Amino acid sequence: MKILVINSGSSSIKYQLFSMPEQDVICHGLIERIGLSDSAIHYASKTEKIEEVTTLNNHKEGLERVVNLLLDDKIGVIKSTEEIKAVGHRVVHGGSTFTNTVEVTKEVKDKIKELFSLAPLHNPANLEGINVAEAIFSAAKQIAVFDTAFHQTIPVIAHKYAIPNKFLVENNIRLYGFHGTSHKYVSELANEYLKKEKSKIITIHLGNGCSMTAIKNGISIDHSLGFGPVTGLIMGSRSGDIDHSLIFYLINELGYKIDDVYTMLQEESGMLGLTGYSDLRDIEKEASLGNVACKLALDMNAYRIKKYIGSYVAAMNGLDAIVFTAGIGENSSMIRNLVCTEMETFGIELDKNKNDIRAKELIDVSLDSSRVKILVIPTNEELEIAKQSFNLL
Amino acid sequence: MKILVINSGSSSIKYQLFSMPEQDVICHGLIERIGLSDSAIHYASKTEKIEEVTTLNNHKEGLERVVNLLLDDKIGVIKSTEEIKAVGHRVVHGGSTFTNTVEVTKEVKDKIKELFSLAPLHNPANLEGINVAEAIFSAAKQIAVFDTAFHQTIPVIAHKYAIPNKFLVENNIRLYGFHGTSHKYVSELANEYLKKEKSKIITIHLGNGCSMTAIKNGISIDHSLGFGPVTGLIMGSRSGDIDHSLIFYLINELGYKIDDVYTMLQEESGMLGLTGYSDLRDIEKEASLGNVACKLALDMNAYRIKKYIGSYVAAMNGLDAIVFTAGIGENSSMIRNLVCTEMETFGIELDKNKNDIRAKELIDVSLDSSRVKILVIPTNEELEIAKQSFNLL
Repeated sequence: MKILVINSGSSSIKYQLFSMPEQDVICHGLIERIGLSDSAIHYASKTEKIEEVTTLNNHKEGLERVVNLLLDDKIGVIKSTEEIKAVGHRVVHGGSTFTNTVEVTKEVKDKIKELFSLAPLHNPANLEGINVAEAIFSAAKQIAVFDTAFHQTIPVIAHKYAIPNKFLVENNIRLYGFHGTSHKYVSELANEYLKKEKSKIITIHLGNGCSMTAIKNGISIDHSLGFGPVTGLIMGSRSGDIDHSLIFYLINELGYKIDDVYTMLQEESGMLGLTGYSDLRDIEKEASLGNVACKLALDMNAYRIKKYIGSYVAAMNGLDAIVFTAGIGENSSMIRNLVCTEMETFGIELDKNKNDIRAKELIDVSLDSSRVKILVIPTNEELEIAKQSFNLL
Repeated sequence: MKILVINSGSSSIKYQLFSMPEQDVICHGLIERIGLSDSAIHYASKTEKIEEVTTLNNHKEGLERVVNLLLDDKIGVIKSTEEIKAVGHRVVHGGSTFTNTVEVTKEVKDKIKELFSLAPLHNPANLEGINVAEAIFSAAKQIAVFDTAFHQTIPVIAHKYAIPNKFLVENNIRLYGFHGTSHKYVSELANEYLKKEKSKIITIHLGNGCSMTAIKNGISIDHSLGFGPVTGLIMGSRSGDIDHSLIFYLINELGYKIDDVYTMLQEESGMLGLTGYSDLRDIEKEASLGNVACKLALDMNAYRIKKYIGSYVAAMNGLDAIVFTAGIGENSSMIRNLVCTEMETFGIELDKNKNDIRAKELIDVSLDSSRVKILVIPTNEELEIAKQSFNLL
């Protein structure tokens, strides 16, 4: 069965066509700079690779162009759009409503719309992707997979903030968590590897956004992102945990505008604010050349992760494995090394030789003596969306 | 040598007269509701107890009245103010300037004034106390003991926020930490008890304000309060850690005023916001009667403390002792029990029988099998200020 997975952003659509349940990738690609005169389409099947620069006025034009490529006599991979039985959509925010993957109905779309204010950058673009796919793949089931759904198991002691109750009851202000599709995907692979009936796992997703999840017996019980995707770990340009009183100090004492403080915390903080670079590869290179700010930022980054590991060990009263995933987690042996140094108290002992291997699939980089398994697992959110879509059907 | 310790608030002065180095309390008391028509003075020596209601227009009038009591023929404890060789003042915020207790000079006072914006509720009142004491005890040395000083050893990886560097460099925005006098006092007693050359201790100060400190070999290396005294643990009316993005959501999406959000997080949150009660004794009583919100708030409170314990175990790569102190830490066996439950992974095992003892001095409430000592130590910030003042002289 062919399932198309779509991750629709404000000016881009990532897509991947799977044959399920074989998990075979038939083709994949990206539409970018939608709305600009130099929009681009990338398309790659097993044998063909196309790059086009054109003008796409909206998401619909972009996806229609991709469909033409899919159907193309020479380079295409399907004969008719009806071969695609389902389109699985990534939707960032499912609020407290969606605890699982669902088939898209009018009610589901209305609810995604209601949640716009909680995810103003993502949910509108995700809904646009659904609407366009409904028009184009009218014979397919549209399926919504929510980034927040995996974290809906987080208990109230961890998802509630210590502010007046009315903000939870009336305004739904609580920890939602994000990157759930990734945390779920890698934790399931980790559990298969561990072969334990009961397990305590910490998944560490280090990409452009960064987050950690405490996963007990397969269930998310705590998470480092919260109401929005900005707390917890130090990210590329997002601050992670700060003392919120500095927001009031900047505005009331130093005369900053609230919008500028917001932008600063979202776009000018994190590794960028500390070093001037947002790409970790640049920062690692600079650090190796003696750049003190870069060295410090890496140490701060790793220290924050270590502290979250400790706090989740407390939350679960134990630990079987930690999992590094996503761009940085999979590729930065330096960050993994910094995180796993002086963590013997938890039974975390890194094999520094294995740690230098570039992982294409799950690898175990812990020493044989390590009580806790240290795993590097490439994440695959698109495959997880395809799996969940397939399972729903 | 007689040392007077003064803790001057905006409308109150707490005072205690010590004979040092014997650590003998000669008398102590409180001046409250300064500036109101029903100001009150409390005075207690070893044999006498006085309570007066009067009108005190300012701190000076209050302290002068106390001096009259100290000098009184019948109930007094000194013959002349010159017997008092030093006045030790609690000063809340010493910024990055004061890493230690100092004798007050004009420069010190100027610096305390410069720090008004960092501690607008406390530093002005602390300085007023110094000025009044200088006028009245002109022969005594005035000594300033800073709540923040003990935490000045916290390394940059833990005291810097991941926001643009200029905010630290130009605006001194960083973690300062508070309750340092208390954390120092109890950690020293804990170290005497442990008799280890190197130690890893977590001190848990649970009073009206709440904070935790990771103390490695006697040195503060991390702390739960930050730039201001509002992050970290869930306090009586302060929120502790939240997702700061909710501040922007409340203002930009729900139309709240920034001042109201500030007040909400400082005065209407924490245990009060969760339960309607700010006194933990009321909350424990209600919880025992089946009040679900109170039970949840206690669980949330303990869960937060547990997570900080875990994070500080990571920061120190080990743990020898945890110390509970201050009003709640010393008196709430329920909170101690909740915190120490399911923490065997750290070697924390509570002796539930010993835990029910009301501590008047250090008690060890851990099981013999517990790798980590669980200590209850009554704090005494006044005595610590007297000790530091005496040592400085």
